[in-house]
Amino acid sequence: MEIKAKFWIENKGEVVLGGGKTALLQTLGHLGSIQRAADEFGMSYRYAWGVIKKIEQRAGFKIVDTKLGGKDGGGAQLTPKGKAFVETTDTLFKDLQTIVEKRFRQRLRNHSSK
Amino acid sequence: MEIKAKFWIENKGEVVLGGGKTALLQTLGHLGSIQRAADEFGMSYRYAWGVIKKIEQRAGFKIVDTKLGGKDGGGAQLTPKGKAFVETTDTLFKDLQTIVEKRFRQRLRNHSSK
Repeated sequence: MEIKAKFWIENKGEVVLGGGKTALLQTLGHLGSIQRAADEFGMSYRYAWGVIKKIEQRAGFKIVDTKLGGKDGGGAQLTPKGKAFVETTDTLFKDLQTIVEKRFRQRLRNHSSK
Repeated sequence: MEIKAKFWIENKGEVVLGGGKTALLQTLGHLGSIQRAADEFGMSYRYAWGVIKKIEQRAGFKIVDTKLGGKDGGGAQLTPKGKAFVETTDTLFKDLQTIVEKRFRQRLRNHSSK
């Protein structure tokens, strides 16, 4: 047997970050473009843009800076605060996953050997 | 902002315990009856029975003992091993929830104050 865990961040009952959203923002940060990040996930530019806007609204601060290119395909990058938020969250979720698995092995050793 | 977490146990890719399944077994343990536990969750006896059988198949050991009454509404109880498994899992999940929230507060204090 093994333990599974899922983590996400909410604000006032709405999902801010978790799973696919974190990955989209990280890819955007690496590729420097909303269009190219959207392509990686098989999303349209419009859809990815909508996801980003929702994340920003729910987080309450700007996460993606598009002033280099604009909405129509130019460059984009994570704001310093956005980058810190995404990286901190991603690291936290990975650390929590490790903790969860470790505690599971400690507690359910007898059961999980069956 | 707040962190949300969900935990469950799998065996060979199939869910053994988590969320509603744990609650059903705990209620069965408290009420001593599959029928009464099923009623609490708005399930039919047959449906609850199916859930229990799946949990047992996936866990690989007997969790509910029905020999006191039989399938048609008599008494039921958790086996000692089943009871230990359900309680250990439930306590682990609650402890993990506490750890997750604590780590979140430590790491994302700055962001979550926004």
